[in-house]
This record gives sequence, C-alpha cells and structure tokens, in this order.
Amino acid sequence: MTLHFNILTLFPDMFPGPLGQSLSGKALERGDWSYNALNIRDFAQGVHKCVDDTPYGGGAGMVMRADIIEKALLSLNNPLVPSSPHPLIYLSPRGRPLTQARVQDLSRTPEITLLCGRYEGVDQRILDAYDFEEISIGDYVLSGGEPAALILMDACIRLLPGVMGNAETPSEESFADATGGLLEYPHYTRPDQWDAANGQTYSVPDILKSGDHAKIKAWRGEQSLALTKERRPDLLKNPA
Amino acid sequence: MTLHFNILTLFPDMFPGPLGQSLSGKALERGDWSYNALNIRDFAQGVHKCVDDTPYGGGAGMVMRADIIEKALLSLNNPLVPSSPHPLIYLSPRGRPLTQARVQDLSRTPEITLLCGRYEGVDQRILDAYDFEEISIGDYVLSGGEPAALILMDACIRLLPGVMGNAETPSEESFADATGGLLEYPHYTRPDQWDAANGQTYSVPDILKSGDHAKIKAWRGEQSLALTKERRPDLLKNPA
Repeated sequence: MTLHFNILTLFPDMFPGPLGQSLSGKALERGDWSYNALNIRDFAQGVHKCVDDTPYGGGAGMVMRADIIEKALLSLNNPLVPSSPHPLIYLSPRGRPLTQARVQDLSRTPEITLLCGRYEGVDQRILDAYDFEEISIGDYVLSGGEPAALILMDACIRLLPGVMGNAETPSEESFADATGGLLEYPHYTRPDQWDAANGQTYSVPDILKSGDHAKIKAWRGEQSLALTKERRPDLLKNPA
Repeated sequence: MTLHFNILTLFPDMFPGPLGQSLSGKALERGDWSYNALNIRDFAQGVHKCVDDTPYGGGAGMVMRADIIEKALLSLNNPLVPSSPHPLIYLSPRGRPLTQARVQDLSRTPEITLLCGRYEGVDQRILDAYDFEEISIGDYVLSGGEPAALILMDACIRLLPGVMGNAETPSEESFADATGGLLEYPHYTRPDQWDAANGQTYSVPDILKSGDHAKIKAWRGEQSLALTKERRPDLLKNPA
C-alpha cells in the first residue's frame, strides 16, 4: 500500500522538508509514499503571475483566488468532483481539529490532496465548489498551510506498514486505542540511578524493575489516568 | 527584538526546513530570529554513540537517555536551572495543548530551548530534573518532536515585529483577541462572478460589495459565530 500526496502550494520547495529525513525519508526512497508539490503560481496568468487579490468588504491582507486554485486542482490526473472519495483537504485554523482517528483513516487512503493557503487564506468559493474538508492541526495560527500539511503528512506516513521499525509501537502511545484515549505513561531507561548535574540523584521507580508484569501494567495505567486528569481532563469528559 | 531557539534533536538537518523559506526565511537572513540545532548524538559516548536504551518494565521501542540529553542541555551557553525564566519545552502528545495565547507569550521571550524526542520518547527524569514544560501541538502522534518544534517556531516567528508584511494582519485572524476567540469569517476576492469548471457560477455575497462597513462588520461577526458554533462549540463553552 502506498500513499500519494498532491500538494497545492505557493512554496513547493518546503516539501518534503523534514519528511525527507529519518524513517519517513527512507520510506520516501522506497516508494512507500510519494508527493507532487504543485506551485499554484504556475497556473496564474499575466506577467505578474498574481495568485491573490484584496478581500471584498475590506480588511488587511490578500486572499488567494478561487479561479487560479481551480486550475491547479484540475491539472491533477484524478477527476476532482465533490463526490470523489479522494480526500480534498484545506489546512486552516478554521477547520475541525485533526485527531488520531482521522489520521488513521487518512493513512489508509491511496491519495490525498492538500491545499495550503498563505496570506489571509483562500476565497471561500473554492472550498464550497469542491467540498474541501477543512482541517486544523491546533488552536494557533501559522504562517501558512505548508507547515500544517507537513504535520498531517508525517502523522499519516508513520502509520504506513513498514515505515516504523517496530510494528508494535504505534498502538501503545497517546491517543491510540490501546491506551483507551489517555496520555501515555512515563518512560524510564538506563542508568538506573542517574546523578544529575543539579546535585540530585534520580532513580527508576522500583516497580518497573520488579519483573511483575501485571503490577507494571496496572502502575502504567494509573500513571496514564493521573496524567490525563491533570493535563487533559477534556479527554475524560468526552470518551470517544 | 530577536528570538533564539536552541533545539536538542537527533535530526539537526530538519532545521530550518520550511522556516528557511518565505517570510520566515527572510527574517532568518535578517537576524530577526536564529537557531542552534544541537545533535544529541554528539554527546553520547562509546563507538556506537548510543542515545537510547530499552524501557524499564518492558514494552516496545526505545527511550532516550536522561544523562545524554543532560550533557547536550548543559553545553548551551545559558545556565539551565529549574528556576530559569528561559522556557525549556519538550514537545510531546502528553503535553498541554499549544494555544495562541502561549505562542504570543513565547514570541516575546529572547530564547527558547526545545527538546525533540524520537522513538518512545525521553526518560521521564530529564523532564523532572529540569522542569521541562511539556507542550502538545495537537491530539495526534508524530514521528518525533522535530515537526512539532517547527510548528511552534513558525507560530512564534510570524508574530515577531517586522516579519509579516502587514502589521495589521495578526490581530484579525482565528483565535486572536480581536475575533473574541472565534473562528475567522470567510474571505472573498475577485473575480466577483466565478464560473467554476463544475458548471456552476459562484458570486461574492452582495453585502461585501455594499460599501456599508458597519453592515459588513456585523455580517462577518455573524459568520464567525455561526462557523464556531458549527465546528468548534468547545470554543464557546470555554470563553478565555
């Protein structure tokens, strides 16, 4: 199974960026995933290649034109119609928050098209006409959609078969089904006794060295629950 | 005012990544921000330069060692003590969610140190000993802390004075104070009538062409509120 990303952007050289290294970089070389970063500016007309214009109704910033973005979208090989099962995603702080469940679904699709906005964003009509799914990676504002696209891609790529070294790992971490939607318990490794430079000695909790797997599992569950209560009570209020 | 990032990572070449381009790239060239990506592996010992080990108590994956990370941390010029006002941040899905308010605070500090985990994460004791703030950029799992660090950096850099072309823009977008914490209203630009390839014609809402600024402002407020109710009722329940 391979995963292909079409990326509509004004900055195609931002890709693959960090995804060209480490395990995702090796997976890219193997062909486990691929991408095609289209420069929206290549579809603009006139000597100035303008892709944006001032917003109707006034206000700061510039808005990316629906007609230019549509030309880029239609240049892709696939028929892009609203009913297509191929996900069309616009990355925006106005979108629904990205969740691990959505990442898991997306990682099982063969192709995803990502639209990256800059400036004040894109003309609303391109989103309406092609029924883009708007996704937000978090409640903060970025310079544009490209860093957010890299995040969505990274989250999907690491779930592809064979990308992670150890197939067991993805199911035991924060938000995965195996943790019951809780935050992950703390990890410890060698040295057992660590003499930190602040003058204190920090030890690994005895229970983790007990060899009693049932107790270790119970302890980890308690730690996960306590951490989630402290930091993310919202995850407990809304069992998904 | 400049902002310096220290980044502790196993993949220093992932930086500046997308931040080396566009407005953040120009700001980097001007010296509005700077970074120092330290390879944690350079502080490991022995021929294998091991930075990680198996977790106490069993389980999949590897855990990055506290003692090696501490050596990298202490190599930085600044005194790193728990009481330091200089933020020490560990990027992790276990952290508190990043918010635009936290981004605004961080963008006003002169220096931020970011610890990026890989594999199963870092030994809990390095976080305890140096009182790292754990921050999550969203409820999904990434290949490592590096892509998350790039997001936090991007969000901070764009708020630095002079980085954005138009100084007015940052206050009128989603989550900013000026919108009352609501999602941003839709944008429209030319052409006024857009004949989309799907055979339909999409028009700009008349009110935006009315020239009546009070009505436009009211319409945009209604749109923001309706969109927030539909997609993010949680933002209305928790007025910040």
